[in-house]
This record gives sequence, structure tokens and C-alpha cells, in this order.
Amino acid sequence: MPGSFIRAAAEDARPLFDVYTFATPNSVKVPIALEELGLSYTLHGVNVRKGEQKTPEFLALNPNGKVPVLLDRTVENGPFVLTESAAILVYLAEKTGQRLPAGGDARARVFEQLFFHASGLSPAFGQSGFFQRFAAEPQPIAIERFSSEAKRTLGVLDGVLANRPFVAGEVFTIADIAHFGWLWRRAFAGVSFEDAPNVARWYGTIEARPAVQRGIARVEALVPQD
Amino acid sequence: MPGSFIRAAAEDARPLFDVYTFATPNSVKVPIALEELGLSYTLHGVNVRKGEQKTPEFLALNPNGKVPVLLDRTVENGPFVLTESAAILVYLAEKTGQRLPAGGDARARVFEQLFFHASGLSPAFGQSGFFQRFAAEPQPIAIERFSSEAKRTLGVLDGVLANRPFVAGEVFTIADIAHFGWLWRRAFAGVSFEDAPNVARWYGTIEARPAVQRGIARVEALVPQD
Repeated sequence: MPGSFIRAAAEDARPLFDVYTFATPNSVKVPIALEELGLSYTLHGVNVRKGEQKTPEFLALNPNGKVPVLLDRTVENGPFVLTESAAILVYLAEKTGQRLPAGGDARARVFEQLFFHASGLSPAFGQSGFFQRFAAEPQPIAIERFSSEAKRTLGVLDGVLANRPFVAGEVFTIADIAHFGWLWRRAFAGVSFEDAPNVARWYGTIEARPAVQRGIARVEALVPQD
Repeated sequence: MPGSFIRAAAEDARPLFDVYTFATPNSVKVPIALEELGLSYTLHGVNVRKGEQKTPEFLALNPNGKVPVLLDRTVENGPFVLTESAAILVYLAEKTGQRLPAGGDARARVFEQLFFHASGLSPAFGQSGFFQRFAAEPQPIAIERFSSEAKRTLGVLDGVLANRPFVAGEVFTIADIAHFGWLWRRAFAGVSFEDAPNVARWYGTIEARPAVQRGIARVEALVPQD
């Protein structure tokens, strides 16, 4: 019964969800999804630049020491605490019956892209940025390995988008939200859309969605202006 | 209707599924799942040591150039081609109605562990092994970064298994199969169970399952004995 839990909780003024998050590639996915699904939420900033995701208080919420974390206050005996951005996307999509096809090839393609993002594009982009920017000493083989892999995975996605308007098929799904997170932060990875015209076209479409813009604005407001 | 497609196809002597695979951490997950689910399949060896996953023929099957790839011959207008080991696990579990709880917290925990494996433990183990074994020149910061991260993610999993018999809760699920893949190849990553007693206990339970042993034996038989 998608929607019923929303009506029940809407009688309470308190937001349905709390999200511990920051303006990071994985964090932004959850507010974007909540905006797309029309769900109310409160954001709690976890400043990863200061290492707040490794404090004892945060590790009690997520022993893996990563943002984002979702707290679902609509469940009995809650809140239900869930980690891993893509698992949160699946959870919210299944809870509301939106943005994840119920079956068939279309559903399998969403999971294929969610896992290609999680295991392929996302770690390549993250490590590419780390070794170009943060390593205490140059590690040339590591820089080459990850910057090449970031460009390669972007090329794979460009091939996917040569044949489809959205990453998993004909409609906008949570897989688009997942890929958007890291592509929004592509400059960190040293990646551009120069050789990825299909990704560039798709990115413009996603970026123009009002819900995406609201989600981005809300995580950016968490960053101290100092 | 889990099961109906199996009965229909069983009238045909041809296996239901083809799997392009090798004896790798991600590849082994699919034959293990097919054995656990009681589905017939044919394995096709793709020798990644010789780079066969980058041939034009293989790239036509998976443009990302990775094993495993599943071909489902039970669908109309098939075969349906699916990549990404964890996406294949979800697809097979949903198709058969097994090894993935239908809803609630238990289901969300499976996805949380599938994505923790895909985005956290798996890339850490893979890069740890690469920089310890294959990099053309020593990259000390990269070695330290990834061997530390491999041990850290193993420690996170050990904490999870301190509270549950299986990685996602009280029952054996596809998330156990996912984690098993890389833990089976932990020596490559330079990781042991010395400081992970809960993982060691869990691993022994999984390894003892007859279906797991059959899946492992079938991928190991793909490796040329030369």
C-alpha cells in the first residue's frame, strides 16, 4: 500500500525521515530521492571534512563510518536505521512504489546500474580524486590506474546512454539518482564530459529536475561558509 | 509464481541459464546462487588471466568487460543478458522467491550488505591485492591505504556477525553469497580471519554448504591446469 504510511505520519507534524549527511557524492542521493518521492525529512549535517563520521556517536549509528544514514520514523518500534546510499534508494523506492519498476527486464536493469555505479564508477571516481589531490606523496601508478578507470567507466555509461534516455531504460529511476551523485562531483575525480556526449545530455536532463535542484541546495546548505 | 518457469523449461533438456565466468571472487557467486536455488546452468570459461574478458566477442556481451554475465533462456524473446554479480543475485532471488526476504527490515538488511560488499569490502580487497602483487613499482601509500581498508571493512563485517548468524540477519540470503565471494579469495588481498572470529565462524558455516561446494568446484574446473 504505497502512500498509506505517508498519510498516517502526515497527521504528525514531525518529518518522516532523518538523514545524517553532507554535501558528498553519495550523500546527495538520499535528499534527491526524498524530494523526488515527495517525502518530508530533516537533514543533520555530518562534516566529513572534520572527520565527524568517525566519532563514537556517529559510529553507533553506522559502524562503517560513512554518510549517508537514514532513520525511518514511520515504522513501529522505530526508528529503523539504514546505511549505504543505494540500499536507502531501494528501500525508499520499494516503500513508495515509485522509481523502481515492479518486475521484468526494466527492474533488472535498475539493479545492474545500481551495482555498476556502486562497484565500478563510484570507487574509480573516488580513488581517482584521492590520488590526484590528497595522497601525501605522488603515486604515479595509482594515479594512472584510477584516472584511467574513471574515464573508462564513464565511457561505459556513455555507451549505455547512447541507446536509452535514462541509465536503466525509458524512465527515470533510482539508478539515475545513484549515477548522478558522483557525476555531480566529477571535477574531484578529474573527469569531464568532453568525450561523453550522451552522459552530458542525460546529466542536463537530470540536473534540470526541480526535485534534484532542491536536494542539492539542501545538502550544500550544510557546508559551513568559513 | 516462483517455480512455474522452472517446470516449463525443465521439459526442455537444455539448461535454463548460461553463465560466462571464471574462478574469480565475483564470478563464483553466480554458480553458488544457481546451485542454492536448484537451477540448471552451463558455465562458459572466460580466462581473465589471458584477458579474454576484453575481446570484442565478450565486450558485445558486457561492454564493461567483466565476468560474470548471466544469460536467462527462460524468458520470451530471450536470452536476457544481465551483468554485475550482485544484480544477478537479486534477479535470481526475485525470480525464484528464495534467499531474499519479501519485505520489511530483513529485506533492507540484505540490500545494505549487498551494497556494503559491492562498494566497500570488494573494492578494498581487490585494490589491496593489486597493489601488493601486480603494480609495476611499489606504491607504498596505495598499499597502506587499501590493505588498511581491507582489514577495516573485514572488521566492520565482524561486528555485524557478532550480532547475527548470517550477514543480513537470522537466515541465509544472497548477501551471504556476495560476501563469500571475496572472503573465499581473502589471501589475494593479504587478509586473514585472525582478528575476525565472527567472520571465521560464519565462513565455516557457508563453506560447509553442499551447494557452495558444488559452485566452487564448477568454477575451479574452468581454470586450465598448466
